[in-house]
Amino acid sequence: MSIIEQRSSLLLKRYQQIRAFSEQIVTPLKPEDYVIQSVTDVSPPKWHLAHTTWFFETFILIPYHGSYECFNETYDYLFNSYYETHGKPYPRHKRGLLSRPSVKEIIQYRTYVDENMVSFFDRCEEGILQEITPIMELGLQHEQQHQELLITDIKYNFSINPLNPVYHEKVAVSGSDLPDLEWHSFEEGIVETGHPGEGFSFDNERPVHKSWLDAYTLANRPVTNGEFINFVEDGGYQEPSYWLSEGWSNIKEAQWQAPLYWEKVDGNWYTFTLSGMKKVERNEPVTHISFFEADAFARWSGNRLPTETEWEYAMKQVTVKGNFADNRIFHPNFDYTSDNQMYKVFGDVWEWTSSPYTHYPRSKPLDGTLGEYNAKFMCNQMVLRGGSCATQSTHVRHTYRNFFHPDKRWQFSGIRLARNE
Amino acid sequence: MSIIEQRSSLLLKRYQQIRAFSEQIVTPLKPEDYVIQSVTDVSPPKWHLAHTTWFFETFILIPYHGSYECFNETYDYLFNSYYETHGKPYPRHKRGLLSRPSVKEIIQYRTYVDENMVSFFDRCEEGILQEITPIMELGLQHEQQHQELLITDIKYNFSINPLNPVYHEKVAVSGSDLPDLEWHSFEEGIVETGHPGEGFSFDNERPVHKSWLDAYTLANRPVTNGEFINFVEDGGYQEPSYWLSEGWSNIKEAQWQAPLYWEKVDGNWYTFTLSGMKKVERNEPVTHISFFEADAFARWSGNRLPTETEWEYAMKQVTVKGNFADNRIFHPNFDYTSDNQMYKVFGDVWEWTSSPYTHYPRSKPLDGTLGEYNAKFMCNQMVLRGGSCATQSTHVRHTYRNFFHPDKRWQFSGIRLARNE
Amino acid sequence: MSIIEQRSSLLLKRYQQIRAFSEQIVTPLKPEDYVIQSVTDVSPPKWHLAHTTWFFETFILIPYHGSYECFNETYDYLFNSYYETHGKPYPRHKRGLLSRPSVKEIIQYRTYVDENMVSFFDRCEEGILQEITPIMELGLQHEQQHQELLITDIKYNFSINPLNPVYHEKVAVSGSDLPDLEWHSFEEGIVETGHPGEGFSFDNERPVHKSWLDAYTLANRPVTNGEFINFVEDGGYQEPSYWLSEGWSNIKEAQWQAPLYWEKVDGNWYTFTLSGMKKVERNEPVTHISFFEADAFARWSGNRLPTETEWEYAMKQVTVKGNFADNRIFHPNFDYTSDNQMYKVFGDVWEWTSSPYTHYPRSKPLDGTLGEYNAKFMCNQMVLRGGSCATQSTHVRHTYRNFFHPDKRWQFSGIRLARNE
Amino acid sequence: MSIIEQRSSLLLKRYQQIRAFSEQIVTPLKPEDYVIQSVTDVSPPKWHLAHTTWFFETFILIPYHGSYECFNETYDYLFNSYYETHGKPYPRHKRGLLSRPSVKEIIQYRTYVDENMVSFFDRCEEGILQEITPIMELGLQHEQQHQELLITDIKYNFSINPLNPVYHEKVAVSGSDLPDLEWHSFEEGIVETGHPGEGFSFDNERPVHKSWLDAYTLANRPVTNGEFINFVEDGGYQEPSYWLSEGWSNIKEAQWQAPLYWEKVDGNWYTFTLSGMKKVERNEPVTHISFFEADAFARWSGNRLPTETEWEYAMKQVTVKGNFADNRIFHPNFDYTSDNQMYKVFGDVWEWTSSPYTHYPRSKPLDGTLGEYNAKFMCNQMVLRGGSCATQSTHVRHTYRNFFHPDKRWQFSGIRLARNE
Repeated sequence: MSIIEQRSSLLLKRYQQIRAFSEQIVTPLKPEDYVIQSVTDVSPPKWHLAHTTWFFETFILIPYHGSYECFNETYDYLFNSYYETHGKPYPRHKRGLLSRPSVKEIIQYRTYVDENMVSFFDRCEEGILQEITPIMELGLQHEQQHQELLITDIKYNFSINPLNPVYHEKVAVSGSDLPDLEWHSFEEGIVETGHPGEGFSFDNERPVHKSWLDAYTLANRPVTNGEFINFVEDGGYQEPSYWLSEGWSNIKEAQWQAPLYWEKVDGNWYTFTLSGMKKVERNEPVTHISFFEADAFARWSGNRLPTETEWEYAMKQVTVKGNFADNRIFHPNFDYTSDNQMYKVFGDVWEWTSSPYTHYPRSKPLDGTLGEYNAKFMCNQMVLRGGSCATQSTHVRHTYRNFFHPDKRWQFSGIRLARNE
Repeated sequence: MSIIEQRSSLLLKRYQQIRAFSEQIVTPLKPEDYVIQSVTDVSPPKWHLAHTTWFFETFILIPYHGSYECFNETYDYLFNSYYETHGKPYPRHKRGLLSRPSVKEIIQYRTYVDENMVSFFDRCEEGILQEITPIMELGLQHEQQHQELLITDIKYNFSINPLNPVYHEKVAVSGSDLPDLEWHSFEEGIVETGHPGEGFSFDNERPVHKSWLDAYTLANRPVTNGEFINFVEDGGYQEPSYWLSEGWSNIKEAQWQAPLYWEKVDGNWYTFTLSGMKKVERNEPVTHISFFEADAFARWSGNRLPTETEWEYAMKQVTVKGNFADNRIFHPNFDYTSDNQMYKVFGDVWEWTSSPYTHYPRSKPLDGTLGEYNAKFMCNQMVLRGGSCATQSTHVRHTYRNFFHPDKRWQFSGIRLARNE
Repeated sequence: MSIIEQRSSLLLKRYQQIRAFSEQIVTPLKPEDYVIQSVTDVSPPKWHLAHTTWFFETFILIPYHGSYECFNETYDYLFNSYYETHGKPYPRHKRGLLSRPSVKEIIQYRTYVDENMVSFFDRCEEGILQEITPIMELGLQHEQQHQELLITDIKYNFSINPLNPVYHEKVAVSGSDLPDLEWHSFEEGIVETGHPGEGFSFDNERPVHKSWLDAYTLANRPVTNGEFINFVEDGGYQEPSYWLSEGWSNIKEAQWQAPLYWEKVDGNWYTFTLSGMKKVERNEPVTHISFFEADAFARWSGNRLPTETEWEYAMKQVTVKGNFADNRIFHPNFDYTSDNQMYKVFGDVWEWTSSPYTHYPRSKPLDGTLGEYNAKFMCNQMVLRGGSCATQSTHVRHTYRNFFHPDKRWQFSGIRLARNE
Repeated sequence: MSIIEQRSSLLLKRYQQIRAFSEQIVTPLKPEDYVIQSVTDVSPPKWHLAHTTWFFETFILIPYHGSYECFNETYDYLFNSYYETHGKPYPRHKRGLLSRPSVKEIIQYRTYVDENMVSFFDRCEEGILQEITPIMELGLQHEQQHQELLITDIKYNFSINPLNPVYHEKVAVSGSDLPDLEWHSFEEGIVETGHPGEGFSFDNERPVHKSWLDAYTLANRPVTNGEFINFVEDGGYQEPSYWLSEGWSNIKEAQWQAPLYWEKVDGNWYTFTLSGMKKVERNEPVTHISFFEADAFARWSGNRLPTETEWEYAMKQVTVKGNFADNRIFHPNFDYTSDNQMYKVFGDVWEWTSSPYTHYPRSKPLDGTLGEYNAKFMCNQMVLRGGSCATQSTHVRHTYRNFFHPDKRWQFSGIRLARNE
């Protein structure tokens, strides 16, 4: 086997492994579950399965395969998510109105594309291989992002059903004592953050760039459900001084009184999970909160959220380990074992930062249509860091920037506090 | 077999036949097709299957069966359509957001209720039989109404899909020459309309009541596609003087330029059908038009729509025959054979009348919750008469009053003109 | 003075009297009060003053005057209310966004048109006089209609202001004992209603036409506040069985619990009037209710609303006398003196009928643009009869048909009950 | 005169001068012009006059005056803008629905408060004077901000009126040649920006803090209308790759094709100004554009917007001179005389930066209700720098941070380009 063949074969193998995980995630679903879109933010599971396939078809097979025949030409319209320079996409809020293609047809589409990928890799020349490798890598990272969305979207879709469907049976988890809240200090100075370019990173993580940081401290662990209940019970959702103006309007209009999925029954807080309703566990990290709630909690507690630079600089030495999607629990746990003094940095819950999502100095979006992947969303969104229980361990990095609008809470999002000395 | 047993057995047999037709209608569907609700007016096919079952469970089994055990208590919330005195129903516009119960579960629900109906009829005593017969009849008529909606809702759901799904293959139909437009005259006088009470009728058709009619004439056939194209091409949708004020706002806002499902390609009109796109057939009755369009067409043509009393009185002698759902074509045809001088009175297309839907003098809604069936909708809707290609022949009558809001057009609705002498 | 001159002079005099009343109505207003439109249904007072002037300019001066020069050409766009065949009108819901023309400019516009009307009448020839007389009459009736709207719109505009502005000081009114509720019977038969054509009538009142009426009875007086409070306190707004389906949705969404302008303070009902807040007077006719509320009240009370034919036939002998705008009280009173056994038939409150607003048999709208005056609104509205405390006595007739959507309640609208024998 | 008396007298004098300017701005208005709110973003002029008065009443007179009697207690509800910790404010989008208080009453309110301020300053003791001085200063800056809004809101209110009202006659302005576009370079390094605390600044400008800046260059002048027309004519509004995702949705939905107020007539661009419609002057700075348009223009031109730190650091040496509200032209001009090589840094148009509006490191909002002044808006808004032709010269500073949502364009907002070396 030549080096090219080996590289090609390894890439194909990763392709197949990652693609397979998408199908594992949807295994517990019934055909009907693939169709619905209970709110615009979420997409039907079958749409995710098709869209990730469309990505490889559009950016690999059609431009590079040579003799590829399109599976169905209308799919280019239906499964383009938001690439306006590629063509006008089917409206996002109407994804749940389409019964066809059926799940079976979408599985056929996946198989067809996967088979074409195999035949393509079989005879892929070095020049092409080099050219497509970053696109392949992007496609795989892209599929992993949609795997996280599959999990959070299925959860949301199930949550609004009065029949309380269960995705998988409760997984027994072992926990540990909650470590005391401690603050780690970092000195002022010029720091470098951002991705250096070795190995994969998204264009939005690059380049390495300098920032000045004043001295600051970071909490050793995320805020827990128990701590958040204190905020709720102290009237946190009724006191405007804790809230950003848009946050206050938001909670008043949406009548939020607690994190998403929480419900109070007979004085106890319960929460909807992929294993059904369960009691809120006080020592788990709080999750399914918006930036507005994270920010209000921080203000109430006399602290603040960290900037993304503070977060990244502080976490540079922390190993990427944690409660990830690899565990297939898909819920934060209360196991606080750690190699160092920082707990639950990666996995469990994404941590809202106080940083609006903007481009780094001298950053450059990818060329062409794939330049739309990240850059065009740099407005009105906030950065989150660290991955969650729905993220795969092979997907997240120290420099990884997730981003959502400040009112979104269907992701596994939580809080780590910061403060100035 | 006693008379009671015979009556009971006949009723059960009708029950089974009518129930079976619901399942025949959905046979061509894939599981995904049962889930969607592409607009609030339509309901997911699985909702129709469950709701009609809920009707028998709620109004027969629970009050009369004696030992009936509810299939699933949440269904009472999910599948109550609009009976507010029974309980707060699940919101109509969210029916398409629920993947569960699955189609399979709903089929189980149907089977379970059907089996309980069998055991119930097996030992139904005379007193009970008498009491439930009108409710059974209402439940069967109700299921037939939902069978019509199943057909029109599937059509709408399919129509908005860029993949143009086909429900069934095109059915070859034989046509005939279009009869010349002729006007049948009716003299002035006191007439009696409404249902006399023998055999089944809805409460809104009763009682027989007197009206004064001025002399009038009615067209011998419905308006055809060809005639409607003349209206379109004469600028009918651009000239406000033909339109009611709300109709004008409606067509301007919705940007209607032709009947629902019509599309002009290279100068020819095409229409979406349950067998896919096909060329508009000039001699077929025009259909899928709103009351606003029917009324505007009539004004443009120098005529008017008939009142429901004019329609009913004129059609008293016409046999209930026509192109009904029994044909399983589910599309109007251009076969103008008739026993008398009036063509296509029943079947093909519902005919909009100029009559707002109100109660007849001295009419009485049914007692209790079933009184909500018809009476509470007597506001802002218009009466249609005659049934359509999606109605069953055993369902419609001379006195039958269908009703829809004046802007609705997903039913097979058309026009028959009237004028004063 | 020739006969022509006399007729001309009389018509001009009526013109001047009626025009003057518009200005009397707005006398208590400050300039700012002329500008606002607190909800789409109401129009800014200055818009009413200009629109009624535009009517005479557009339908008399421009076509007939000969040498008339338009005051301002943009006014034709701004002050056309809804005559689509005349030209696209300025959007209704944006009338309150225009500060110009100022009140002063609109008064100048009125003066300018009025002066031109004088010079026009000075030299108006017989042929022209004959031709314009019905248009003049329509313009005067039109101005009277807007005078009623001026009153109800000012009331609504003031009502939403937390400063509770007062339009005029409370007028002392004398009342009388409430007559017992009695029912007047009418026999079945063919009746004739509609306007015979002598003297002015709108096109929607014509022609005289026959109807069959079953025997019925009508209440001798409108429903009172006291009676309506009984309905409210009996949970009328909480019980769906009293309500039409759209009425129920309406009251739930709008959170109505009582008539418009009512407020409960310390267990007592108060209502906003043009003289400020005052206690609800139990013996006054209930007013500011929607058709939905009138219909629900009737059902709750075991009765129904009359049809418009029943109302008109029954009231044929009743003199047009009552508490009209002529009194300048602009509020219903509790004075139940009457020449006959029917109380408060005219004036005080418009009485909702159960009749949807449709055209009479063989009715014909006016020719041309003025045909839009009434006919195009014959959809989704209900007929009211009898005039109110904001109507002028010279404006209303036995055959007069007012019409509003069933959810509207800013007019002085009330209830008279009917029932079958 | 003691020092206290002098300080007190000086402060009062400034108060009176600034207050007087509000009244000068509204001098050309008719009473009707004070009432309207043509879109939620703008407020009725009379609201601005009252709200700025409420500020002094609420934060000076009521807490410090001793014997102040409230002018009208309902005003506290009506004229509280957004201070939720003070009390629930009257809804912003309904400000234009209130005709009362009238302009006259609001002028009386202003006079009443002004007179009380005089009597308060007459006997204000040293301790109190010291305590209130920063609040007074804030109140005066606040009034100046509302003076800018008065100008931009009047402009917007007038712009939507088909009568094209004129606020003031065209002012003759002298221009100069357009300087060539040149780029000024700045070296990388740690810079300090933010306000040091001497003299007035808002809490959002403080404290001085360090940042690292990579080397960058800034354009010597704002983008002109001529340059923006090139973008428009190059299809800038049709090409998605120039736009942020939310910007693209925004321009498609709102159908924007050019800056606000622009209109193309016979091939020439015209723009609405406070002196009516005038031809777009190619050499004036482009204005009335959103952040989305500024950002898209920058991307189209191969450049970017500066960060607010880059802007502030670069402009440190530039004198605060320019075309300000002091000129009472209220429109950008094309006079490019300058003391240094940077043109039109202050005045003319606010310059959009690429910086989301967030708090500076270690910044602290004011205590109490006034802490809501700035901090709670730090979400989803972008920073603008430099002041405009509607800003007063005494109001703006190098460190001044203005902020608006990225889709807003009724302010005099423009573009200065930046790029990396």
